[in-house]
Parts: sequence; C-alpha cells; structure tokens
Amino acid sequence: MTRLLPLLILLAAGSARADEGMWTFNNFPSDLVKSRYGFAPNAEWLKRVQLSAARIAGGCSASFVSPNGLVMTNHHCVRDCVQQLSTPRNDFIVKGFSAATAQQERQCPAFEINRLVEISDVTEQVTKATQGKEGAAFRDAQRAELARLEKACATAPDIRCDVVTLYRGGMYNLYKYQRFQDVRLVFAPEEAIAFFGGDPDNFEFPRYDYDVAFVRVYQDGKPAKVENYFRWSAQGAQAGELTFVAGHPGGTSRLLTVAQLIYQRDYALPERLFQLAQLRGMLDEFQQRGPEYTRISNNLKFGVENSYKALVGRREALVDRDFFAKKVAEEQKLRDWVNANPERQKRYGQAWDNIARATDTLRDMRLRGRWLEQSAGAGSDLFNYARVLVRSAQELSKPNEQRLEEFTEARKPELEQQLFSPAPVYPKLEEAVLGFYLTKLREVLGPDDPVVKKVLGKQSPQALARKLVSGTRLASPQVRRQLYQGGAAALGASKDPMLEFVRSFDEEARAIRKRYEEEVESVSDKNGELIARARFEAYGTSTYPDATFTLRLSFGQVKGYTEEGRQVEPFTRIAGLYERATGEDPFRLPPSWLQAKPRLDLQTPFNFVSTNDIIGGNSGSPIFNKDAEIVGIVFDGNIGSLGGEYGFDESVNRSVSVHSQGILEGLRKVYNARRLLEELGQGGGG
Amino acid sequence: MTRLLPLLILLAAGSARADEGMWTFNNFPSDLVKSRYGFAPNAEWLKRVQLSAARIAGGCSASFVSPNGLVMTNHHCVRDCVQQLSTPRNDFIVKGFSAATAQQERQCPAFEINRLVEISDVTEQVTKATQGKEGAAFRDAQRAELARLEKACATAPDIRCDVVTLYRGGMYNLYKYQRFQDVRLVFAPEEAIAFFGGDPDNFEFPRYDYDVAFVRVYQDGKPAKVENYFRWSAQGAQAGELTFVAGHPGGTSRLLTVAQLIYQRDYALPERLFQLAQLRGMLDEFQQRGPEYTRISNNLKFGVENSYKALVGRREALVDRDFFAKKVAEEQKLRDWVNANPERQKRYGQAWDNIARATDTLRDMRLRGRWLEQSAGAGSDLFNYARVLVRSAQELSKPNEQRLEEFTEARKPELEQQLFSPAPVYPKLEEAVLGFYLTKLREVLGPDDPVVKKVLGKQSPQALARKLVSGTRLASPQVRRQLYQGGAAALGASKDPMLEFVRSFDEEARAIRKRYEEEVESVSDKNGELIARARFEAYGTSTYPDATFTLRLSFGQVKGYTEEGRQVEPFTRIAGLYERATGEDPFRLPPSWLQAKPRLDLQTPFNFVSTNDIIGGNSGSPIFNKDAEIVGIVFDGNIGSLGGEYGFDESVNRSVSVHSQGILEGLRKVYNARRLLEELGQGGGG
Repeated sequence: MTRLLPLLILLAAGSARADEGMWTFNNFPSDLVKSRYGFAPNAEWLKRVQLSAARIAGGCSASFVSPNGLVMTNHHCVRDCVQQLSTPRNDFIVKGFSAATAQQERQCPAFEINRLVEISDVTEQVTKATQGKEGAAFRDAQRAELARLEKACATAPDIRCDVVTLYRGGMYNLYKYQRFQDVRLVFAPEEAIAFFGGDPDNFEFPRYDYDVAFVRVYQDGKPAKVENYFRWSAQGAQAGELTFVAGHPGGTSRLLTVAQLIYQRDYALPERLFQLAQLRGMLDEFQQRGPEYTRISNNLKFGVENSYKALVGRREALVDRDFFAKKVAEEQKLRDWVNANPERQKRYGQAWDNIARATDTLRDMRLRGRWLEQSAGAGSDLFNYARVLVRSAQELSKPNEQRLEEFTEARKPELEQQLFSPAPVYPKLEEAVLGFYLTKLREVLGPDDPVVKKVLGKQSPQALARKLVSGTRLASPQVRRQLYQGGAAALGASKDPMLEFVRSFDEEARAIRKRYEEEVESVSDKNGELIARARFEAYGTSTYPDATFTLRLSFGQVKGYTEEGRQVEPFTRIAGLYERATGEDPFRLPPSWLQAKPRLDLQTPFNFVSTNDIIGGNSGSPIFNKDAEIVGIVFDGNIGSLGGEYGFDESVNRSVSVHSQGILEGLRKVYNARRLLEELGQGGGG
Repeated sequence: MTRLLPLLILLAAGSARADEGMWTFNNFPSDLVKSRYGFAPNAEWLKRVQLSAARIAGGCSASFVSPNGLVMTNHHCVRDCVQQLSTPRNDFIVKGFSAATAQQERQCPAFEINRLVEISDVTEQVTKATQGKEGAAFRDAQRAELARLEKACATAPDIRCDVVTLYRGGMYNLYKYQRFQDVRLVFAPEEAIAFFGGDPDNFEFPRYDYDVAFVRVYQDGKPAKVENYFRWSAQGAQAGELTFVAGHPGGTSRLLTVAQLIYQRDYALPERLFQLAQLRGMLDEFQQRGPEYTRISNNLKFGVENSYKALVGRREALVDRDFFAKKVAEEQKLRDWVNANPERQKRYGQAWDNIARATDTLRDMRLRGRWLEQSAGAGSDLFNYARVLVRSAQELSKPNEQRLEEFTEARKPELEQQLFSPAPVYPKLEEAVLGFYLTKLREVLGPDDPVVKKVLGKQSPQALARKLVSGTRLASPQVRRQLYQGGAAALGASKDPMLEFVRSFDEEARAIRKRYEEEVESVSDKNGELIARARFEAYGTSTYPDATFTLRLSFGQVKGYTEEGRQVEPFTRIAGLYERATGEDPFRLPPSWLQAKPRLDLQTPFNFVSTNDIIGGNSGSPIFNKDAEIVGIVFDGNIGSLGGEYGFDESVNRSVSVHSQGILEGLRKVYNARRLLEELGQGGGG
C-alpha cells in the first residue's frame, strides 16, 4: 500500500480545493471548514439546518422563517404562481402582492414544497438488484428496485420519497420529504424591482435586485406548524464572514467523462442554444404585438432568456482550452491509476470506453430523441397535459415498478397536482409555441420523415397549431380531471384533437425514449458506477457528488473578485439602485421604490457576493452565518459561476444574494409589511 | 532530392482526389480530366468558357446565353430585384415576371454583373511590396500595392479590377472584369415553383425546383452585344456524363490551419448560428402579423434560413471526430516535412504558431468586432446607408491607397450603385431589425459598456430603433445622393438621427476593425503566405486554391449517391413535383403549374445531381458538357455538400441543378415564353 501513497496524494491534491463543494448533509466536511474558518458544524447544527431548509418542487430552494409555516424564497421562484393569479386587469407581476391578513393569502396553483426529514443509504439494495445485469435488464431491475424502495417509504400522500443517485452511481440514498401541496402567496414585490436590470443584468454583478418573496405552507387548511426555522442575523452579511448556503442545486456535470463533455460541447449545448435562440427571437417579436401579449409570455420569456445566458456561459467554459485540458488530465490520471494494477484494470478499465460508445449512440439518436420526446411540444401546456393523459391510461394500469418514472406511485401526487392545476392557458401563446415546435419538427427530421408525414399530413405547421389549440378542450382543469379519472375508457373514447395529436406519434416517441434508456442511460449509469467506485478507491469519500436537485450545504465567505482586471467589491447599496435606474425597462423602478426613496437609508447593503459553490436550483436558498441566522437570500450566480457546471474556480465563481438588511429595509419602508416583519421577529424596527 | 520522393508521394496522395477541386482557369488540370474522363479542355475551350461565364456582384454566378446580352441565373439570385420591383398590389414574387417585349424588361436597382476578361499574375509585385514587413506596416504596404494595381488596371468605369489572394497568400492574381450596371429583368417564375419545398427542402435531394431566371445586360441603353455565350445541349444532362461548372464559389476554408478550424468550430460558427437562430425566430413571428409583413421580410428570411441551414451543416462537419482528425493529420504531415529540414524549419516553422496566436487575439476581440463592426446594424438598410455616408466623408478625402478597401477607386462604382439604389426601404422591418441589433449589442457588451451607454443613453432598444427609423430621411435615394455629393461639409451639417447614431460609435467601430486588420488579418495573411509556399514546395501547384468568389471551373459527372443506406437516384422528373405538392406553403404549386399539368411531359427530367465541387456563390452557374453546351443550371448543393467548406468527400457531396430539358419544358408549356425560347435557339420546339 505504501507505494500508492505518493500517487494518492497527487490525485487528492486536485479534489478538494478552496470553498468548493455542494456537500451532502451526511458527508459534510466539518473538519475542512474548521481548518479554514475556525468553526466546525456539529450533527445537531446540521440537523437543524436541514430541517429549516425547503425545496420548491418546480426547481428552486427556500427556507422556513417562522414557526407558522412561513417560507422565504426568490420572487423568480414564485413567478409562475404570481402570473397564474393575475389577470389582465389585476396584474400582480406589475403591482406586486402583499397579503395584509391571513385571509388574503392566495393559494398557488400547482405549487409543491418539500422538507427533507430523513436520509438513508440504500446503495447495497440497489447494486444487489442490478448485479451482473446490462442494458434493458439493468434498467428494468434498477427501476423496479427504486420504485419498490420509494413506495415502501412513501406511506402517506404527504410523504415524498426519492432514491437519489449520488456520485453518478457510486451511492444510492433514499431521501424522505414532508410534502406540502397547499402553498399560499404571502408577499411578492413588483417584478420591476425583483428583476431590476432584466436579462442584461442577469448573472452579472454589481447588481440591484430585490428578488425575494414569501409563501406559507398550509396543512388541513391551516398554517403548518414547524419546529425548525431560521432566525435573522442582527447585522446581515459582513465582508469576510463565513457563510453557508443550504439549498437544492439542480445538477452539475463535474464527474462526466471526457467523451460526455465533448458531447456536451459539440452537440448538446450548441443545439439547445440554437433552439433557445430561435424561441427567444420568436418571443421578443410576439411581445411587440401589445401589452397583453407581453403579459402572457413573460414567464416563458424569462425562462428562455435565463437558460440561454446560463448555457452560453457553460459552453464558454467547455471551449476554453485550458479548462478542457484540465478535465482531460484529471481523467487520464484516474485511468492511469486504474491501469497501473491488473485487477483494477479488469474491474474498471473498460468503463470509459463503454460510456464513449453509449455517447456515440446518443449522438446518432439525439435529434429524434429531442424532437419526439424530450422537447416535444416545446413547452406547450396543452401538449403536456395531453401527453400526461394519453400516457396515464397506459402507465397507471401497469404494476408500479414497470411504469415510466413520472407515473410511479411516489410521484403521483405531483403529477396530479400539475394536471389539475387551475392555472390559465393562453391560446395565442400556445399557438405560437406549437407552431414553432411543428416547424422545427419538420425542419429537423425532414418533410419526408414518416412521423412528420403522419403528424402534419398536408397541413402547414401554423395551420395545424391553430386547429389543435382552437379544437381542444384540455384548457379546462375539469375536463382534464374527468378524462384522467375516466381512465383508458374515457381517454380512448375522446376525439379531442390534442389527444389525437399526441397519440399520432406517441409510439415512436416512447420507442426512442426506451432506446435511450436502454442503450445510453443504463450504460452510462452502470459504467458511471464503476468509475465512481474507482474514484472512491483512489480518493476516499473526501469529495462531494454532482448536484442532483437534493439538499446540499456549501460554505464560503463574503468576498469580492477581479473581473477583466477590475476589482469588484462584494456589496452594492440601495443608493446604487437609483443611480442605475433609467426609467425604461428593464431599468425602470416601480412607483413604490421611487416614492420610498426619501425614507430609505441609501447606505443599506442591497446585494452581495460570496464564494459559496452553488448552481441553478439554488435560487431561493437561505444564506446564513455560523449561528444559522439568515444574512441574505441567494438569487443568482455571477458570469464566472456559469462554468461551475463543470468545475469550481474560486477566483471567478461567486454566488449573488440579496442582503438581509436590504430585505428588511424594503419590507419596512417601501412595503410597510408589518404583519410579515412581526412574524420574522423584526416588528420593533423602522 | 531523391530522399524526398516517398514523402512527396505520400503527401500528394491526399491532395488531388476524385472530382475534387474549384480550379482556376490559369491552372486547370486538363490532364487529370483526360485521364478520368477521356477529354482534355484546351486553351481555346477554356477561354471561350471563361468569357461566357458571368458573376453577379451580390454573390451569385450566371452565364451568357445569347449574343444580345441575355444572362441566365437562378431565381434566388434575382430575388432582391424581383422584390424591389414589386409592390403590395403587384407582387412579382408571387405572380412571376415575364417581359413579352424588350420594352417590358425592367431595370434592377443595384444589380451588377461582371465578366472576367483577363487574369494576370502580380505575385511578385505584391510580395515585394510587403517584404520584411509585419503587422500594421505589412497591412499598409499590401493595401497600398493592391490599390495601386487595381487603379492602374481599372481605366474606365466599366472596367473592374480586383487583386485576388489565392492559396491564402501563395499567389496574387489581378482579375480584370467587364462591368455591367444596367441589368434588366427578363423572366422570373413564381417563387412558389422556383423555391418549391422552401426551407425544409433546401439543401436536400430529391428536389423539384424551377430555380431559373433571365436578365439582360445593357450598354448605353441597348442590349449589350457579346461574342461568347453558351448554346444549349439537345438532350441535357445524361447519367454518367462528364459535366463542368464555371462559377464563382464564394469561399472555402480548406487550407485553414487547425487553430483556425478550432476557432471556427468553437466560436465563429456556433455564435453566428445563435445570432441567425434568434433573427429567424423574430422573422417567423414578424410574418405572423399579416401578408404585408410576410412580403417585406421574405427576402431577409430566405437569407437567414439559407445561412442557418448551411452553417449547421458546416458545423457538423467540424465536430465530426474523423473529419477533424484528418485535418489535424494533414497539418501535422506538412509541419513534420517542414521541420525535417533546418532551413525549411527556419523559413516556415513558426507560421502555424503565429497564426494560432493571432487566432487567440481574434477570440478575445470577437464579440466587440462582431457587434460594433462586422454585424453592426444586423442588416438594416438604413444603418448601412448611414455608415457608408459617414465613412465616405472621411475615406474619399484620403489618397486611394490609404482608404478602407470598399472606398477605393476600383470599388466606387459598386458602392455608389448600392448607395443610390431606388430599392424600397420597409420601416416596420427596419425597426424590428434595428431593435434586434440594439438588444444584442446591449446583451453582448453589457449595459455598462461605455459604447452601449453612449448609444442607448436611457432609452430602450425598441424605443431608439423606432426613433431612428421614423426620424431619418435616408430612405430617400435623392437625400442620400445629395449628402454623398455634398461630402464632408453636407454630412457634417446634417442632424439626421441615423447619421448621428452611426457617428456615435464609429470611432470605436473603426478602431476595432483596425486592430483586427493589424493584429489578426495581417498576421494570418503573412503566415498564410508562408504555409502556402511550404505547400507549393512540398506538393507543387497540382492543387487548387480556396474559393475566393472568383471564376473557377470544376469537373464531375452526373451521379447519384447513398444517404443513410438508401440509394439516391441522380434525376427527378416533373411528375414527382405534382406528387410532392400538398397545397400548403412551401409545398403549394402556383396556378400556372397546376393548369399546365395536362400539357407537360411528366417524364421530363427536372432536377439532377452531379459530383462537381461547388459551394455557396456557385448558385446560378451554368453546368455544361464537353462541347460547352448547357445541360442545366446549378442552384444548390445537397446536405453532404455543406461540409465542403472544409474538404470534399465525393461519396456524399453533390451539386444540385435544374435540368436543361426541365427549363425548356417550363418555358414552352407553362410560360409560353416564345421570345425567350427563340433567343435561346429553341424557337422550333414545343
């Protein structure tokens, strides 16, 4: 073993650096934090933080901030809800929303909040179930075992259980959540201040956003009581202060093999960006038709612009020569270590080439996969409803462990909440989106493709889109509920054109998904497991897994950085907001902030940056000090954080937060939100 | 020398393959054609073909087809003109255009046709002028020498002279053209048949397009007399027949270094595609507003879609692992050969690294370069007029050899024709395009960039675009002419908002262009020359230069190919057109073709493919047999031709042409175009 030592040290030198890491709560490096910052979180501290954190099922993070189920998150995390509660005459996106009384709190359609209550290790069960299996057999066995574990754990509708694949298959943990589906809007500022600077300022710093909102979880029609929640720091974030972020980073690709990274660089990222860019051009022009067109499409536009900018940054990291060379060298080191020992070579040596072959398969099937299955409908709500309905008839009649994963018993409450959502559907936008989808489908697969011929017949994409949207009755939640509850018989009898449309190519769509799962995903999973085990053997578990939209804890400090030779200070102040305002969107302040200016302490810190390692999905995460007191709320990363998908570079990567003092100053002097301030224990201020 | 032989053979093996090559007329491989096809073009044959070919300055090819200045090209090459002659009530794009008499032939605004009359070698003069110079000095000396040579050659306004850089600097030739600026439309079919299948069928085969049009060049108000022109083949293209294409391929990148190819793959191509995709989405939605919006934007939309599809194909060639590996190996071979000899190493060895460094500089400045200079205005006509005016005031007062190249005396006739063009300007489209441009400018450079701040001030991109378009008077050709003729004084006095807008960042735009020319272009040119010389030393001149939008001759044969395992036949027939028609755009036939169906011989060949090596710019090229008789007209390449930018693969690369019999059948039985048929020597037919 001694001969291994120098190599191990060499290898390990590259693994845990700086403030890097989105750590799991059951493998948090307290000693490392102690050595860097003089404070070691203990088990009790970790448990309290875990139970005070929250996840928004749609893709955000949040925190409990009162014993009465009050939850803090970003405005952009509740944007869907605010939009859905709005009408052309009463647009809360423009006016903001503040419930002066409990009665005024309004239920969000299709909103789910989860609180992680328990983590258990199920690695042994899962790997035993798939032992010696490959391809379809591997996938079926794994899916069956996961469904079994999840169902056994989810003993009530308000318990949600997910088996989480960590270290790309090196470890399987069962995460048990408390599920809240009655979530009501308490406070949301005007979007003009929440997203001040819009797309141009997105992912940038210095920054001036009041991107905060409050909702409340209810149980049996009453505010839920919670034991664990965050208190507020008296001062808020200070320069150089140790800060923690507990949140749900959606996904990272730091453990991908080089073959997988090349696929990302050359196919996945650019092609997704072509799609987003075109959709973006479409939406920009759609909005030029008038204010109502703008209102109904702003939500989609925000999502598209946000993804576009994030993926541009990601792509730039991958085409960076030095960055890529580092990834290549890291992989080569591990492969050399594996190959240096015949037994290890036999166990792990083929894993990289197997993944490379699966990636070639993916490359060859990617366009059909994207346009028939993954991006089918291009975001049309009506299409999505129809597809869930069509598939529910087939899937729900199967045994739990054989279903597509979104139809398993453990996922059903979320599926049904989405399907029965009373959120409005906008026909003009649906037409535009479906027209875009059908045009791309024909363009990418070609007019002679049998699916395209079957779907379009002799119609133009736009004509078909119009016909589908005007003919379907699926915009009504009641109609959807009846069809769903009527099951295969009711669905089979329905001649709804959107259902017929989905049915017209569902067989082909399911076939390509199956092929993907069997020939790509299962191969990557199985061989990813092998690489993960090789990595554990070489480095131990002194490393963190790729993000998986599950609860993680990162540590860091409030600290500026250098960009293109300029020093960027860690804080902005409210004064800067007024200097930046131009009076024109997206730099136009709402009336409330214009009127409040004389009352505000303009030196109050507004936004700040810290070295905490975060990524998309962390939006809404609490950022707190060593006493677990809120010092702000994470709402973004800077441009340098975008490459964080593939690796963490502390010299440029920063998370961006609203400062707790800025939040309170706004609640007090702009919104006069007394009820809320009192609940936050800040009633005496102002 | 004998020691070199095996290496030379090895090297040469990879250079002239199959039917590859866009050959210059003064270095045509007649022996190679003889050995493959049993026919060797002689000097007289070559001269006759050269003088019968024509170039459309806007970016197409064409041919003389009668002694009275009749010129054949593609419909899509005269689309601009057809559109500009149209009005909402009289839309020749929809109805087609056919001049029954000479008097009905209508002058195209801003159309220039060139005929190559003479080629002379000026390599010695140019390399002597730049000897021992680098960077700005190299560039200034080269520019001065080129301007001098061109001016000395262009002795009259109807003589156009261009020094052409061949083999990326290995050779400089002076091309002398006869210039025709009075060009009149004679015949154009409906776009619905010229571009049947639209974007979905673009770059595809089998294909059914009647993409042909005729114009006539005039001199002193009368049809120009020409001695050399193409006659028509009695049969048209036959399977397996030897075919030639004489045309003006716009540009290829087959001699780029690997560093330059990586730049194309990772930056230039994807980023240009992001831009095109967004513009495309914008235009698609713009057209949804109504038929007049469609009419005024179709020209731009065609260009955007065409570029998009072409660049997607190009990018796919570069991300192909095997293809790229071949380029790397080719470069390595030449570098090894250079490095094998100390003297050669000293002479050429640094060239690749120097280009790589210049490419890094380009990478770092690319976004400012693109958005301030290269793509400034994003295609707005008003912006372009304003920029030409602003710069003309400065440039025209300088000595010829110090001007930006588009302002040199040799280029002035083209510049002025464009500037004074009576083509209509469409304010709604201008607003949309400028709004797009300003939004991208702010997005890419950031709202804090000094140029962005100066340009936008506190205005939104859309508001500024509207203000510029509604406030400017530059839509009037008279106003532009007055300002241009008034020179610096008139321009300086004008407060036209579009002029002010251009002026507001012209200094920065010119500075970045200067930096590009001095630090990127001149370094690539100088070192490209070195590599070209090394290549000549290794391979001789048995190779062809990259395309440069100058006259080239390619040879090949009518031949099908295999695509995804299916055999694609070389011909389509008129019958297939009717089978493919759906009645919906872009598969909707115009009334003329629907009515003519009973009269047509449905077995007439319509489109066909051949192995001739072509690329964008070759559109409109005559394709002819060994007797120099027209057998068709090139209008496209297939999907496999798109990688032709970087290398020729005969197994998949095909040019796509309208068959001469198909052209005549249409003229006779659909359009009854007797006058035209008689002029083509086909009066007796039908």
